Amino acid sequence: MFEPPVQRLIDELARLPGIGRKSAQRLAFHVLNADEVDAERLANAILDMRTQIRLCSRCFNVAAGAECTICLDTRRDTAILCVVERAQDIVVMENTHEFGGRYHVLGGAISPIAGIGPDQLHFRELLARIEPEGVQEVIAATNPTVDGDATAYYVARVLKPLGVKVTRLASGLPVGGDLDYADEVTLGRALVGRQEL
Amino acid sequence: MFEPPVQRLIDELARLPGIGRKSAQRLAFHVLNADEVDAERLANAILDMRTQIRLCSRCFNVAAGAECTICLDTRRDTAILCVVERAQDIVVMENTHEFGGRYHVLGGAISPIAGIGPDQLHFRELLARIEPEGVQEVIAATNPTVDGDATAYYVARVLKPLGVKVTRLASGLPVGGDLDYADEVTLGRALVGRQEL
Repeated sequence: MFEPPVQRLIDELARLPGIGRKSAQRLAFHVLNADEVDAERLANAILDMRTQIRLCSRCFNVAAGAECTICLDTRRDTAILCVVERAQDIVVMENTHEFGGRYHVLGGAISPIAGIGPDQLHFRELLARIEPEGVQEVIAATNPTVDGDATAYYVARVLKPLGVKVTRLASGLPVGGDLDYADEVTLGRALVGRQEL
Repeated sequence: MFEPPVQRLIDELARLPGIGRKSAQRLAFHVLNADEVDAERLANAILDMRTQIRLCSRCFNVAAGAECTICLDTRRDTAILCVVERAQDIVVMENTHEFGGRYHVLGGAISPIAGIGPDQLHFRELLARIEPEGVQEVIAATNPTVDGDATAYYVARVLKPLGVKVTRLASGLPVGGDLDYADEVTLGRALVGRQEL
């Protein structure tokens, strides 16, 4: 229907997560109508990121060099390690300004249905970091989902025998939320995890 | 917060319409985790489209050559012209399979608030097509908005003196819609435009 070069961009955009056919069309026409330099900058940003970014050899965070800025930061506490599913979760954690340790990106969660077991994730590399870095506590900051919970339990199972304290992020009501809008599972967890004032 | 190449892509993506900061992050990390070839294909699709596509010299539709495929199609009826605001509207019209004429893209709608008058749109080129192409009817298929309506009236005002019949797309209830969900303006238009069965 569209001229082939336009259709090709629509197809590529529609492959992105959360972008439907209609959004892809809208975006493609936006790029078509945008300034030449804007379109080039977007294309180059994609290419540059792919060539300049790799994964940190220690924690699998995104890195511009061999190790990421967090692993290279000598002020970070190496005794406490926060285990997350994906690299983007690190930024969310960092934005809380509540954590001063290092991270370890598993690269996903254990999911028997999707055929993802511990061997497909960076568990071996996690175990290899415990002794040399003197890790005493591991926070399992996987998502509060079935797979994320299963992954957290697996983290606990393999690390506890090594004498490492394993903790989990608290589940409960979102701050600023409304009881009315909380689902029963979240509310149930908030109740179980209630804290004395 | 992010490594500069990642942040740069997030910034570029967030400039796109309908893409917020959070979506831009999600998309950037998707591209980061995607296959190298996929990322390259997306970047190249953007660059290719910009270099290979121009505007049809006759109707301002997107075109791979000097004129678009519709203007080059000799089977199209040149006596009837459909005036649309943007090139992407042509595809929507074509998908109805109800129109066999040609198009003319205005490049927007008249909007006194945004400072867009007839001179900023392709009205001059529209007038220049009437006689040589033997246009007898012009369908004002601008959006059913205040600006779109104003533009349609302007089309009628300048073309009627030339003996051209000017029509407007019908406003009314969407097919498959529900009276309950129709806003009063649409319902009012549907009432005014009611047709005998």
